[in-house]
Amino acid sequence: MVTAGRGLAGVEVDASAISEVDGARGALRYRGYAIEDLAARAGFAEVVGLVLDGELPRGADRAALEGALRERALPPGALAALGALPRDTHPMTALQVALPLLDGPGDKARPRLHARAEQRARLLALGARLPALVATWDRLRRGLAPLDPDPALALHDDFLRMVRGRRPDPEEVRVLDATQVLQLEHGFNASTFAGRVVASTLAPLSEVLSACVGALHGPLHGGADEAAWRLALELGDAAAAPAWVEARLAAGEKIMGLGHREYRVVDPRARVLRPLAVGLARRAGLEGPVGALVAVDEHAARWFAARGKQVHANVEFYKGAVFAALGLAPDLFTALFAMARVWGWGAHALEVWDDHALVRPRARYVGPPARAWPA
Amino acid sequence: MVTAGRGLAGVEVDASAISEVDGARGALRYRGYAIEDLAARAGFAEVVGLVLDGELPRGADRAALEGALRERALPPGALAALGALPRDTHPMTALQVALPLLDGPGDKARPRLHARAEQRARLLALGARLPALVATWDRLRRGLAPLDPDPALALHDDFLRMVRGRRPDPEEVRVLDATQVLQLEHGFNASTFAGRVVASTLAPLSEVLSACVGALHGPLHGGADEAAWRLALELGDAAAAPAWVEARLAAGEKIMGLGHREYRVVDPRARVLRPLAVGLARRAGLEGPVGALVAVDEHAARWFAARGKQVHANVEFYKGAVFAALGLAPDLFTALFAMARVWGWGAHALEVWDDHALVRPRARYVGPPARAWPA
Repeated sequence: MVTAGRGLAGVEVDASAISEVDGARGALRYRGYAIEDLAARAGFAEVVGLVLDGELPRGADRAALEGALRERALPPGALAALGALPRDTHPMTALQVALPLLDGPGDKARPRLHARAEQRARLLALGARLPALVATWDRLRRGLAPLDPDPALALHDDFLRMVRGRRPDPEEVRVLDATQVLQLEHGFNASTFAGRVVASTLAPLSEVLSACVGALHGPLHGGADEAAWRLALELGDAAAAPAWVEARLAAGEKIMGLGHREYRVVDPRARVLRPLAVGLARRAGLEGPVGALVAVDEHAARWFAARGKQVHANVEFYKGAVFAALGLAPDLFTALFAMARVWGWGAHALEVWDDHALVRPRARYVGPPARAWPA
Repeated sequence: MVTAGRGLAGVEVDASAISEVDGARGALRYRGYAIEDLAARAGFAEVVGLVLDGELPRGADRAALEGALRERALPPGALAALGALPRDTHPMTALQVALPLLDGPGDKARPRLHARAEQRARLLALGARLPALVATWDRLRRGLAPLDPDPALALHDDFLRMVRGRRPDPEEVRVLDATQVLQLEHGFNASTFAGRVVASTLAPLSEVLSACVGALHGPLHGGADEAAWRLALELGDAAAAPAWVEARLAAGEKIMGLGHREYRVVDPRARVLRPLAVGLARRAGLEGPVGALVAVDEHAARWFAARGKQVHANVEFYKGAVFAALGLAPDLFTALFAMARVWGWGAHALEVWDDHALVRPRARYVGPPARAWPA
């Protein structure tokens, strides 16, 4: 009998070939490729193919993949359910609710083991529909008619058009693509691990992904981007940051989006994201709040450095600036996280079904001893 | 760095005071009380109180608990969403979809740690509504108007009335109560463990429970009751069983519902359930199929015993006979499992929030080594 540490910290629970988190060196690689290369040089569809299949898609494979990502129309059942939701339903709740409706009963057959192509096709169908799902819900809750997807457009170009009603410019698409690449996959985080447990029961893929969304909705997992941006808006500009940081840290309180459980030095995604976020936010007239973010990051880093610690912003910290610059509401930010991470979750489900074991750990029982029924 | 076995088999991942699975001796206890005592002597609400609070509820506490279980009416948002689902939506899918709608945005605040009373109240509200949810969906999909809950009736009395349109007799309620007690809680099974991972992110309780439903929908976890009953119907009576068992086992194939990963001797729940199931099925004119189940169980046990192995029916094997005798459709069986297990899932979420650690294990990376971007 093995006893694991709290939260399974440091426990290797399974093997995975999808991504490598090198916390000591501050590196993240998908299938061997550095996140810096992927964010700068790969198209979004290319990264999806890499994460699912293990190699960068080329030629006809790449064309087939890009074609699959154009099949974005929501099934009528999902549209009808979204139309019936109360307007104040959080986008993450709407996503969890609607995901099992993105396919039909025929797609919910028990996943066959070692039959990757079948489930890969289902995953492409589900992941391609997620941006339409998020955009549709955002319009419905604002009292606007949803816009149909346009298969002529690339995924994030179409997503921003469906949310905003007008095409984004190429720089907006480029930065959103890179941001989504950065948060597409990250080892056995809580949502991915929950998904692997659910997948191990041979639950249908769309229901595995719905469960992952539930985990990502937890503020300890997916909510830091929204919290950091709300802070940026509250501070308003760089000048207000130092005093706020001092007061907060001196009181022993944490700042959402600073530090990362895995990375001892710096979160490599934050290093890539920061200049992109600052550039896009400035273009959108958000110099003040994004300046506040940079000032909080740098002032906190100095504060910790003076105490012998390395603490920097993680990827959550700057994401909100990108999404806000794109005109998205703060309570949509985590849904954007899900739109990217769905590919990681799905790749892990496929991996589980290629090398399967039902997850069924033990509890260390600490309750009352056996007792007789009261007379 | 600790490396765990496949599926975390034999790994104690956390402490829990809720139930004790003693596989070597074939015993199961909730908070110290034997499952045999609970099924025979406790009311369903009493077992809910025991599992949530650690002691059998007495006096005013018990009355308060029974009162909470009478608040069953579905919120309008959940009703509207169910009304919008395609008729062929599986009951487990409907349950996963509607669970996050059983409460409102105000109930989705980040669960506070060490504030058990708040989340306990939310759990009672959610769990009490689950039977109405299952009954409502079953009527809607059959083209019937849903029936409002009747708070004057006990939970399973009202459930059977809402599904069937007429009150059950007391024996039906007694057997359903006992069956639901038997499957209410069972340590760190896959759905409960998935729920604990999701709860560890501080996701809202209703979304934790939705994720658990996803895991239970997997045929390796929740589907064996339906499979066993379909087999019983196919065989038709006891006479057909021996030849079928011989052929199946001689071919090296498994029989759904026989044997259990945890119990080396016998599943104590099956021992309690078998006479209840046989009695209720006979009353309902299902002597043939339930006789087939008993014959498969006994013939298979002899087959294995002749090979030095102890293999008996587990709790799943006889559950379907109860549900079929109650007039429920086979594809509702796993939803009945969820109606009971929701209390176990919820008790585990409360336990996680009393002694919290974010679940974040590690992967053993087995993918390609770091590689340069292709020129």
